Amino acid sequence: MAETLIKVDLNQSAYENEQVHNRWHPDVPMACWVNPGDDFILETYDWTGGFIKNNDSADDVRDIDLSIVHFLSGPVGVKGAEPGDLLVVDLLDIGTKADSQWGFNGFFSKQNGGGFLTDHFPLAQKSIWDFNGLFTKSRHVPGVEYAGLIHPGLIGCLPDPKMLAAWNEREQELIDTDPTRVPGLANPPFAATAHLGKLSGDAKAKAAAEGARTVPPREHGGNCDIKDLSRGSKVFFPVYVDGAGLSVGDLHFSQGDGEITFCGAIEMAGWVHMRVNLIKGGMAKYGIKNPIFKPSPITPNYKDYLIFEGISVDEGGKQHYLDVNVAYRQACLNAIEYLKKFGYSGAQAYSILGTAPVQGHISGVVDVPNACATLWLPTEIFEFDINPTAAGPIKMLDGSIDMPISQDVV
Amino acid sequence: MAETLIKVDLNQSAYENEQVHNRWHPDVPMACWVNPGDDFILETYDWTGGFIKNNDSADDVRDIDLSIVHFLSGPVGVKGAEPGDLLVVDLLDIGTKADSQWGFNGFFSKQNGGGFLTDHFPLAQKSIWDFNGLFTKSRHVPGVEYAGLIHPGLIGCLPDPKMLAAWNEREQELIDTDPTRVPGLANPPFAATAHLGKLSGDAKAKAAAEGARTVPPREHGGNCDIKDLSRGSKVFFPVYVDGAGLSVGDLHFSQGDGEITFCGAIEMAGWVHMRVNLIKGGMAKYGIKNPIFKPSPITPNYKDYLIFEGISVDEGGKQHYLDVNVAYRQACLNAIEYLKKFGYSGAQAYSILGTAPVQGHISGVVDVPNACATLWLPTEIFEFDINPTAAGPIKMLDGSIDMPISQDVV
Amino acid sequence: MAETLIKVDLNQSAYENEQVHNRWHPDVPMACWVNPGDDFILETYDWTGGFIKNNDSADDVRDIDLSIVHFLSGPVGVKGAEPGDLLVVDLLDIGTKADSQWGFNGFFSKQNGGGFLTDHFPLAQKSIWDFNGLFTKSRHVPGVEYAGLIHPGLIGCLPDPKMLAAWNEREQELIDTDPTRVPGLANPPFAATAHLGKLSGDAKAKAAAEGARTVPPREHGGNCDIKDLSRGSKVFFPVYVDGAGLSVGDLHFSQGDGEITFCGAIEMAGWVHMRVNLIKGGMAKYGIKNPIFKPSPITPNYKDYLIFEGISVDEGGKQHYLDVNVAYRQACLNAIEYLKKFGYSGAQAYSILGTAPVQGHISGVVDVPNACATLWLPTEIFEFDINPTAAGPIKMLDGSIDMPISQDVV
Amino acid sequence: MAETLIKVDLNQSAYENEQVHNRWHPDVPMACWVNPGDDFILETYDWTGGFIKNNDSADDVRDIDLSIVHFLSGPVGVKGAEPGDLLVVDLLDIGTKADSQWGFNGFFSKQNGGGFLTDHFPLAQKSIWDFNGLFTKSRHVPGVEYAGLIHPGLIGCLPDPKMLAAWNEREQELIDTDPTRVPGLANPPFAATAHLGKLSGDAKAKAAAEGARTVPPREHGGNCDIKDLSRGSKVFFPVYVDGAGLSVGDLHFSQGDGEITFCGAIEMAGWVHMRVNLIKGGMAKYGIKNPIFKPSPITPNYKDYLIFEGISVDEGGKQHYLDVNVAYRQACLNAIEYLKKFGYSGAQAYSILGTAPVQGHISGVVDVPNACATLWLPTEIFEFDINPTAAGPIKMLDGSIDMPISQDVV
Repeated sequence: MAETLIKVDLNQSAYENEQVHNRWHPDVPMACWVNPGDDFILETYDWTGGFIKNNDSADDVRDIDLSIVHFLSGPVGVKGAEPGDLLVVDLLDIGTKADSQWGFNGFFSKQNGGGFLTDHFPLAQKSIWDFNGLFTKSRHVPGVEYAGLIHPGLIGCLPDPKMLAAWNEREQELIDTDPTRVPGLANPPFAATAHLGKLSGDAKAKAAAEGARTVPPREHGGNCDIKDLSRGSKVFFPVYVDGAGLSVGDLHFSQGDGEITFCGAIEMAGWVHMRVNLIKGGMAKYGIKNPIFKPSPITPNYKDYLIFEGISVDEGGKQHYLDVNVAYRQACLNAIEYLKKFGYSGAQAYSILGTAPVQGHISGVVDVPNACATLWLPTEIFEFDINPTAAGPIKMLDGSIDMPISQDVV
Repeated sequence: MAETLIKVDLNQSAYENEQVHNRWHPDVPMACWVNPGDDFILETYDWTGGFIKNNDSADDVRDIDLSIVHFLSGPVGVKGAEPGDLLVVDLLDIGTKADSQWGFNGFFSKQNGGGFLTDHFPLAQKSIWDFNGLFTKSRHVPGVEYAGLIHPGLIGCLPDPKMLAAWNEREQELIDTDPTRVPGLANPPFAATAHLGKLSGDAKAKAAAEGARTVPPREHGGNCDIKDLSRGSKVFFPVYVDGAGLSVGDLHFSQGDGEITFCGAIEMAGWVHMRVNLIKGGMAKYGIKNPIFKPSPITPNYKDYLIFEGISVDEGGKQHYLDVNVAYRQACLNAIEYLKKFGYSGAQAYSILGTAPVQGHISGVVDVPNACATLWLPTEIFEFDINPTAAGPIKMLDGSIDMPISQDVV
Repeated sequence: MAETLIKVDLNQSAYENEQVHNRWHPDVPMACWVNPGDDFILETYDWTGGFIKNNDSADDVRDIDLSIVHFLSGPVGVKGAEPGDLLVVDLLDIGTKADSQWGFNGFFSKQNGGGFLTDHFPLAQKSIWDFNGLFTKSRHVPGVEYAGLIHPGLIGCLPDPKMLAAWNEREQELIDTDPTRVPGLANPPFAATAHLGKLSGDAKAKAAAEGARTVPPREHGGNCDIKDLSRGSKVFFPVYVDGAGLSVGDLHFSQGDGEITFCGAIEMAGWVHMRVNLIKGGMAKYGIKNPIFKPSPITPNYKDYLIFEGISVDEGGKQHYLDVNVAYRQACLNAIEYLKKFGYSGAQAYSILGTAPVQGHISGVVDVPNACATLWLPTEIFEFDINPTAAGPIKMLDGSIDMPISQDVV
Repeated sequence: MAETLIKVDLNQSAYENEQVHNRWHPDVPMACWVNPGDDFILETYDWTGGFIKNNDSADDVRDIDLSIVHFLSGPVGVKGAEPGDLLVVDLLDIGTKADSQWGFNGFFSKQNGGGFLTDHFPLAQKSIWDFNGLFTKSRHVPGVEYAGLIHPGLIGCLPDPKMLAAWNEREQELIDTDPTRVPGLANPPFAATAHLGKLSGDAKAKAAAEGARTVPPREHGGNCDIKDLSRGSKVFFPVYVDGAGLSVGDLHFSQGDGEITFCGAIEMAGWVHMRVNLIKGGMAKYGIKNPIFKPSPITPNYKDYLIFEGISVDEGGKQHYLDVNVAYRQACLNAIEYLKKFGYSGAQAYSILGTAPVQGHISGVVDVPNACATLWLPTEIFEFDINPTAAGPIKMLDGSIDMPISQDVV
């Protein structure tokens, strides 16, 4: 068995683990070193470091301090890696921890992060998903079971100081356009809850003050939440610092394109088995700015989809100009409306779209003024037939089960 | 063989064909009638009615009057169809015309329509694609050959007066926000070039003045440009008028998600063999606002993808808020930069992204402030290996062949 | 459009068409010539030259003289092809003829050819299948509709005299082991019904006396009946004579692995659009004895299979030694028994296994004494759910429709 | 985590584990009991109980006493199961043991079991395969790496006395036709090496004398070696005794159709996570004689195949009558010959065909006298391109590495 270079104890605070960090900064010390060609295992916390519990209340989703996320395992130093290289990462396998056979999905309150459909689902809600081998079911969302397209939501290499500065600058400019917006337009550095591995003292204070938050995807990859970065895939990451500094976390048991529920996919603790190699000078050779990757030969073969279209006219009938976000939101709302005819609550339907391996396609972006987006819902994940028929839908669920909800605390 | 209810003669002007129209209006007379359960064939012009020619000049792409598009075959009346029904359309087959074994792809000048990357490719360019059975190649874009994911870019039913009014109103409101923009934010009704089947006289004048342009996708479907609406797929269309009034056109031999080149996919004349059925009252039964569909069991099995990521930071380094369009544009630009390393011109690479069965996924839309989009490029369409290797790329093309380009006429 | 080098008139006897032949012999004159790199179209008769009719009687299946088959279009001479080369054939497309939108499937009487399950279905039966674009249905086998995996049952190059002699010798040796068996162990040359293109007189008499029958697959390919040799696939054929001499026929709209019904798949007249190229000296370079091929990127994506196992213990309980034929026969009989629970007659179920894109896998051939074969039945082709459930099967068909049957004439 | 009901210690003899057995007999005591709906984990030995070692000598393959195999974990009693029911088994996951990250493949000597190509490879040879997450490579077979289609080679329920008697009788009849053949036509009961769980004394002696060997697949499933019975699949087993008595073992990390190397696939110790349910009276309801199953939604997506044909004319040129075994053997030999052109030894090529997810299709079984079988070799598993080109093959391997071989001891 490959060596486990980073271990996490789910009963210990993530802040106490010196091989874990929750900010991007070039000064985070390497947690361990490997050679090109090595394969090894990293264990990870769930993205909240264990804050969300396996119970039937959404209070934790409502109350979480989002400045603590995401807890990443790493950085792993790769000997010989230099700025300008490509770090080739084979995701040889990804798994769950034996003592944590469950994950969570939820919607943040609009007061605390929100989500893609936050105007429709403004309160904190949660669903718990049990893992049964490769499959998952939820006691809060009956009638569906699916094979997990397991993947890390967040993976990438350390930025160099120049890139870090560019990130902080451009994001602050955006925040400055509407600084009091709720939820915020972006998240600036925030020292109070920063964790930077074994860094301490002044060095830590400096890095905490500058360290980029882990929420958005950026040039290095980061929180891409790409469901197809699944086990068996191969990723080519830009390298910015000597040793590369690869970190990973935010594992998802399953997720749909867009991760529309934000909190999030089916979030889990677990481990990643990976192998690293280098393409020296690969960034210039291939003209690489963002990571590229190749999908896995091993992915769920769902093939029978029901596909929902959306265009860039919003819920109020207002016309937007080629706006894919608006179009995708309409496709999602159309799918939720459809699923309600079979007995799901809106929240349950939303949760399915956030956690099942749905596809979101940018179908048309040139036919002014309407963008067209499509949401691909695999029909095989349902225990009953959801295809349209001349007879009309049968209400398969009686509404007796719903997802926990928590009112905002004023 | 199923009956061909609408024929088109490619040597005749589309304006002379009374079973063709280029505006959406409830008054367009049914071109023919069928019964539920019938299958039949409709021939179609290419979307420009034959304006673009099989030659080596992009002048026609530069000079086209875009107010003439799209020439649609129909409307087909379906007996018994009433507002509120769903019209179920099986696309039994789609094909090319024996006397027109080629298609075109191009970029409009920024002065005349533009496109997704118009700031990078502001001039008219064109590539011609020859059909060889199920496959296509271009004399202007060497090194690729692919199986066509053939589909109608445009298909849908007639709107009723109320829906038509809503379309015109909301689009005019958008235009009014920047009425002199080039290209325009949307296209208002334009009577001069309207063609409304056999309608004539005052009735034609009224419909021409009100008829919605065919460019954008809307609630009825329309110009969705969804590449997966391919032969073998099944579509459920909302019905707004008695008889439904199904029209189809703008056939594409192949296209990528987004149809980013706008002019367009690989555009072609051809025919559609379809079967229609009804789900009475289906809109309310299933909560349908936009069409839904099921993909075909017969689609190209490209499986080995190279996937490019893009985030919502634009080419100038500016931060945008969860903007999928910006993110997808970056993913496209990243892919173009990559392909240039193998010897393609930027225009050729752009043309490949517009015509090959690339996928565009909305990978992340909640990780503020960056949306993440992915462009999936099938590697099997290339005659050489485009995967990254430690040895670096080999320049397979010497640049001796490029796409015709035409300067704007000032 | 590529040129149609061989045309067939379905109202004319195949014997009158000089570009058609029904025996393999090096003396058959080339019907036409092409250059490497050319693409072209060949029309073909159905394998019986039109003997089987679109009606509701199985008399024609019972009465056919099987010495007339198969009517092949060709041979096509390829300039520069020499013995030892590989002829690379791209099957660019395959289609039906506009005036013949149907095909047939049947079982021969045990007295006249038989079939894989002839002891269970000893009488002539027939089903007619209508083509609807890419799909097919039968008025004799309700409840199924499938996309055709269209392919030529028979394709290959002319043998040289030495190979022809080897074929005739080894097959005669087999016949001699039981010369009066019904049906025969193999089919020797038979001059009376031979058709050899434009060959006539003594030359024809010689070739007719020696010409190998077209029934079995052999080293050159020939009647392989491989369902996956579908449009879009690429085949590498051994070349034995100058010019190669490629012939093709016996088109199938759809077929399962094994073509177990023998008469046959869904048999049809049609056309093949192909492109030819050469690998000089390819047989020795790659150690090729039989053709090799690559499957099409465009094939029906049926994914949800119900899989039946069979072992090499026969219907009478007798143990056979690692016999895959016995095992596959048991898997087929198991599937027929299963389908009868839903209301199909045995003949209908057998017809489905012969015509739908079922897979037959050689699952185990080493675990003495039992071979294990599996039959993969795609569940999506049925209009109702055939999966096993705790509730048991629902009889969906009332038995009012069955396949025509004809008693043997004594 | 589901409970592990049966554990195996790889450092302990399988004969000492009372929850393991190596014969089929109704008297084997249930090793544990579960309820319908339960999910649980069973650990298993490799099929030889650890006899084959991770080293570079094939002596163990040559010397093994094959009467000891296969060591199965079970039987698991299912409460409420009765003869005539169907036992529904969901294979929720299958994995390797942390302390055993490797597997073996080999060819038995013709003197000790042989294999599908024993006349071509008559001596014992072995290759060791290392597991890297979901992938495997071998130090004895360079140039290939593949994702494992992990599955149990052997799984099924206990026979009742009548079925057991039928097995023994029909197999003995076969043996009696050539009782001194090497290797034997079948394997009769053999008491000396029988292991029957916790059975002891006279009860054990009786069962040992009658217990059916585990080598062949039979009506209950058993040693089917079906590569597609992979994790995520669902199997319906006939039940013959109260409690069903489900046993499993002989795990394979990867295997090709036919398991042609016999020793065997990539053989491994590991564990199976499964869930059981019942369809009461299901055998009669569905007409079930042998197990049926549904494949997994999660399987390696290898799509680019090179396909080899074989016909039923043997290596000596002799004609066989519709014999699929002969045809498949020719297809395998054709593929081996082809791979040798790239530098593989015959043994290495044979090992690849036995262990990679190759498909073996029964392509034609009615075209007298030749059966046609096809071997589908996925090209993506090779680190270099094995497709045929006009330039001819490049010898990628220099022959410096080969598989260990051991001469027979006279």
